[in-house]
Amino acid sequence: MDNRPIGMFDSGVGGLTVLKEVMKKNPNEDIIYLGDSKRFPYGSKSKESIIQLTKNGIDFLIQKGVKAIIIACGTATSQALEEMQKIYKIPIMGIIEPTVEYIKNSNKRNIGIIATTGTIRSRGWERALKEQIPNLQITSKACALLAPMAEEGWTANIVAKEAIHEYLKDLKPLPLDALILGCTHYPLFEELIKKELGENIEIINTGTTLAIKIQEELKKRNLLSNKKEANYQFYLTDVETNFIQVAQKLLQDQNKIEKILLANI
Amino acid sequence: MDNRPIGMFDSGVGGLTVLKEVMKKNPNEDIIYLGDSKRFPYGSKSKESIIQLTKNGIDFLIQKGVKAIIIACGTATSQALEEMQKIYKIPIMGIIEPTVEYIKNSNKRNIGIIATTGTIRSRGWERALKEQIPNLQITSKACALLAPMAEEGWTANIVAKEAIHEYLKDLKPLPLDALILGCTHYPLFEELIKKELGENIEIINTGTTLAIKIQEELKKRNLLSNKKEANYQFYLTDVETNFIQVAQKLLQDQNKIEKILLANI
Repeated sequence: MDNRPIGMFDSGVGGLTVLKEVMKKNPNEDIIYLGDSKRFPYGSKSKESIIQLTKNGIDFLIQKGVKAIIIACGTATSQALEEMQKIYKIPIMGIIEPTVEYIKNSNKRNIGIIATTGTIRSRGWERALKEQIPNLQITSKACALLAPMAEEGWTANIVAKEAIHEYLKDLKPLPLDALILGCTHYPLFEELIKKELGENIEIINTGTTLAIKIQEELKKRNLLSNKKEANYQFYLTDVETNFIQVAQKLLQDQNKIEKILLANI
Repeated sequence: MDNRPIGMFDSGVGGLTVLKEVMKKNPNEDIIYLGDSKRFPYGSKSKESIIQLTKNGIDFLIQKGVKAIIIACGTATSQALEEMQKIYKIPIMGIIEPTVEYIKNSNKRNIGIIATTGTIRSRGWERALKEQIPNLQITSKACALLAPMAEEGWTANIVAKEAIHEYLKDLKPLPLDALILGCTHYPLFEELIKKELGENIEIINTGTTLAIKIQEELKKRNLLSNKKEANYQFYLTDVETNFIQVAQKLLQDQNKIEKILLANI
């Protein structure tokens, strides 16, 4: 048993879709969320930059006394997770592995992946999937604008619809079994993506598979909390954003997010 | 006479529209261009962050021996120019003042401004215009997605068209004389903007007014170059971008940009 909080690191508001799933599946766990809004978006940055920024974020969370860390950002997971797991002893989990495991245990073998430019360029998803699952057919597509579009709150208007249409036009004719949303902003476009691709393709929200996995991991390491009511703390590196609005809309419970603290890193 | 280069600072590729105009009007001047691509975009960052990042950029250019500095970024001009002019003795010019002067000397008094969230929020354009020109009618609109859209190369497709339509729908019914493109990425959308607003509204490219002004300033201070052929150097803080493609397309002369150097700041 361990009542210390879980730390979550993200490049902005995208990780809130992961937070939502983690809260739902782990209602006893305190969470400290750190969004590096000052340097958002990570998608277009180099591997070297992303490793440095992720390390800064993890150092901050460790100083706050967390028992485990979730990297709730597709770009940071694909570019920096391996490096971070070499540096730190604390359990650090990214958003790729749990989904790889989920697909491995399914019969889905024709997979599409959409993510930021950085994530796609790193081939992190492809490598992780192919290492675990032979004979997998993978098609990837970088969607650079979807994360900024989500930050603008445009997740259901005509611009979002046309952008989704443009980005998915090469994937649509393929016989895909599933599409991985490889950036944590993308669950915000789930409705539009479903409409564009039809109901036969499963849309995989990496936050859901991760939320289940973190519970299993904490249990295995005897780190589960037994708190009756969980506390949530939110830090941003730049507070002048629409974080609270997006968070309240997404988490659908205004009491969970009352104030944002400034992380001066 | 002074053959040292002019330094140009921008947050990414947007300043290339300014560079293009400065090159055209000042063909004898060497230019060192620094794009802070690692931290792009500035539009959503706080004033404090933007001041710090701009200062880092200017320090870098001064070490390279420039004789004057152009801040070729709307957000950095509106948030950090005043501060920079207090700190440094070297002439530093932003993209706001020359356009204010241009409007002052015209009969245009009903002005629209589009820019990033940071620029609009700072009210830098409004303050600068109203200080110089009384009885001005100003309408501002933040267009957070246009800069990332330009970086994606989407400046003429259906997504760009719908985004422009969405952003300009409140400005379109107004009796505007001119629309200031308050972000240096926006000249890339000039065709779409003209189509959306019609031919009666003058679209003001701040790069053009600045390119004329810098020539006047250099002349006044006896800093003009007498070189026969100008040299151009390009630095980025993160080199893995589509900078060269955008630059070659925009400057329409591949010889002007051969390689990108890494500015390790």
